[in-house]
Amino acid sequence: MDIATRVYNHRWKLDPIVRSLIDTDFYKLLMCQSVFTNHPHTQVTFSLINRATHIPLARLIDEGELREQLDHIRALSLSRGESTFLRGNMFYGKRQMFRPDFMEWFEGFRLPPYHLERVGDQYELTFEGTWSEVMLWEIPALAVLMELRSRAVLGRMKRFELQVLYARAMTRLWEKITRLQQIDTLRIADFGTRRRHSFLWQDWCVQAMMEGLGTRFTGTSNCLIAMRREVEAIGTNAHELPMVYAALAEDDDALASAPYQVLADWQAEHSGNLRIILPDTYGTAGFLDRAPDWLSDWTGIRIDSGDPAEGAETAIRWWQDRGQDPREKLIIFSDGLDLNRIEDLHARFAGRVKVSFGWGTLLTNDFRGLAPDDGLTPFSLVCKAAAANGRPTVKLSDNPNKAMGPAEEIVRYKRVFGVGDQAAQPVVV
Amino acid sequence: MDIATRVYNHRWKLDPIVRSLIDTDFYKLLMCQSVFTNHPHTQVTFSLINRATHIPLARLIDEGELREQLDHIRALSLSRGESTFLRGNMFYGKRQMFRPDFMEWFEGFRLPPYHLERVGDQYELTFEGTWSEVMLWEIPALAVLMELRSRAVLGRMKRFELQVLYARAMTRLWEKITRLQQIDTLRIADFGTRRRHSFLWQDWCVQAMMEGLGTRFTGTSNCLIAMRREVEAIGTNAHELPMVYAALAEDDDALASAPYQVLADWQAEHSGNLRIILPDTYGTAGFLDRAPDWLSDWTGIRIDSGDPAEGAETAIRWWQDRGQDPREKLIIFSDGLDLNRIEDLHARFAGRVKVSFGWGTLLTNDFRGLAPDDGLTPFSLVCKAAAANGRPTVKLSDNPNKAMGPAEEIVRYKRVFGVGDQAAQPVVV
Repeated sequence: MDIATRVYNHRWKLDPIVRSLIDTDFYKLLMCQSVFTNHPHTQVTFSLINRATHIPLARLIDEGELREQLDHIRALSLSRGESTFLRGNMFYGKRQMFRPDFMEWFEGFRLPPYHLERVGDQYELTFEGTWSEVMLWEIPALAVLMELRSRAVLGRMKRFELQVLYARAMTRLWEKITRLQQIDTLRIADFGTRRRHSFLWQDWCVQAMMEGLGTRFTGTSNCLIAMRREVEAIGTNAHELPMVYAALAEDDDALASAPYQVLADWQAEHSGNLRIILPDTYGTAGFLDRAPDWLSDWTGIRIDSGDPAEGAETAIRWWQDRGQDPREKLIIFSDGLDLNRIEDLHARFAGRVKVSFGWGTLLTNDFRGLAPDDGLTPFSLVCKAAAANGRPTVKLSDNPNKAMGPAEEIVRYKRVFGVGDQAAQPVVV
Repeated sequence: MDIATRVYNHRWKLDPIVRSLIDTDFYKLLMCQSVFTNHPHTQVTFSLINRATHIPLARLIDEGELREQLDHIRALSLSRGESTFLRGNMFYGKRQMFRPDFMEWFEGFRLPPYHLERVGDQYELTFEGTWSEVMLWEIPALAVLMELRSRAVLGRMKRFELQVLYARAMTRLWEKITRLQQIDTLRIADFGTRRRHSFLWQDWCVQAMMEGLGTRFTGTSNCLIAMRREVEAIGTNAHELPMVYAALAEDDDALASAPYQVLADWQAEHSGNLRIILPDTYGTAGFLDRAPDWLSDWTGIRIDSGDPAEGAETAIRWWQDRGQDPREKLIIFSDGLDLNRIEDLHARFAGRVKVSFGWGTLLTNDFRGLAPDDGLTPFSLVCKAAAANGRPTVKLSDNPNKAMGPAEEIVRYKRVFGVGDQAAQPVVV
């Protein structure tokens, strides 16, 4: 290494984890534009929730370091090249996906303040403000906490232990890729930004998938990596839309129609492969039963909770009931995927529907069993809309272990959406 | 990378494999000084022998590239820092191991010409000249051929395939080291220069052993790496000494005493842990039976062919017969070692004798099963003294598969040294 580089590197007080506003999931930007247009004045609260309470984040991660990382993110703004990419790139076959008014706003955007408090061995981290601004905290906040936890564990390891750690993780991923090479008609994307081991590791994983799977690797949800590695940016919409729309509903009737209003707004803006239904926010079965007919014309359905095979069967039956040919429809599996589940689901559904996979945490953070005391195993950390205009949000999903919201509101939502008993699934990541 | 570094790197026409005259086994330098002193006029021929005839070296390795690498080695001379190290470092507890007259000669030394010819799918590579000069070709010639073969295979692999290849090799070595950590009284050194996968890989292996085994890792045979990594340079003497001494013998009586003359000369120069007997050149059992009593005072015995446990039992019985306490004696195992053999031999002999291991090819080149068509599996390539002052050399060893020399000379040597039937052992590396 030359001396100048070394001196330059040592000048930094901080090794920033998130270095770009577009080091985030592409669908956040799509949803942000939608919110910017349709709900410019909605105030929301996003909260971080560590479902893995046995992992004492506040003991592992120094509060000062966490603040430095979050402050660094608040100092970020869109670079000229990033702006040019968002304005000029073709996303999902469409030029100018991001409108000039949105881009102008985004170019001047900084992330709003955060509220951080240590409570016992956990951190309470919340973000309050205008929806379109607060929502962009979700992914960087999660990525920072995940990577600071990684660094805490890595900091105790010796030099060659570290080399071998990454050697093992590389070997493990490559063995998965080698197995996936056997599936000719596979279509799979990286959805692993939020709970990645680290930025550099996600970047490595994406490149390994590119080399190993070629065109079967359809892209990454990470907008920055998509730009740098010249692959597709992937993603459509998420639970925060129906959750906030539902919290804003004035009565039970408005609540019952809120999830469909989300998709009506989406349809006004997007077509083709961006028209993907995420049906599980308040129970997939009831959502599909009561869905307006125009929704059956949409391109596909994303299965993100509950038993994935059951969810896919429900979707197929629904399309058939509505006179659609499931073979023309797309199912995207995106919940808790790993090699075996991908293989099983592909074997069961390929040909019956178009199948695609959004592979998340066990693509970009499968360090299970690789560090002392399993200290690098991934865990379930989320950052969710908790309130909108002062009212609490609710999520039911197809897995009671993923439900969120005040108990009395959950009862009300279950009644309005006709959700009965649900089968509980363990939440791994 | 900065531009200057990149431009500088791309200026090189060649990526030299051997970049230093001391990128060789330390014992070569010890023996060279002995030969320089005791046999300054002996003319020898060294020849490369690929025992793995199924590996078509001449098809894998371009002759032009091989010549460029060999020519580069001929251009090397001892650097000032290397000379200072050899003159000033303490080796085996002794300062000024290398005498000023030898160092002066070595500082002006260049390797002599080589003779290279393609014969079918193999190369015939020979070196002729003064013994002290020609002998220093052995290790770099082997290392160059091994690494050019590695490069030939690596050149067909893609970028992430390569990353994963090294990830797997690192993981494999680390798992061996983790197992070796269980052996509290282990003493083990790197003997893997000649058939290493590559220089950088050997350097990595040595560092991993240093971190993983601490003081149980006693050093490396590679003089350059010992200097750079500040560990002990390890090694004593090799078969070439008795083979050349024997070839120079004028009659059967002189032949019978030649192997002992080697050690008498060695004893005049070296003490302590450098007094290690290598007894197998013409059969261990007969060598020890007929050994003069002063040899039983030596520090230890190196077991380099035949069944190693049997060899060690023979050594122990011999010391007992000569009134020595085996628990005070050192046995160095150095033939075809890998994890299981190390564990077994240690379990069987620790406490009965002092045990030490010289781990060679399966430390620095265990790429078995890691490349397509097993293209990187190590193989048995040697470079041996074939003639001295115009007479052929002979090696019998304790394994008929390692025997060398003209058939009628082998018969004569077997008669002179009283060698009968021998158990054949497969030669892996």
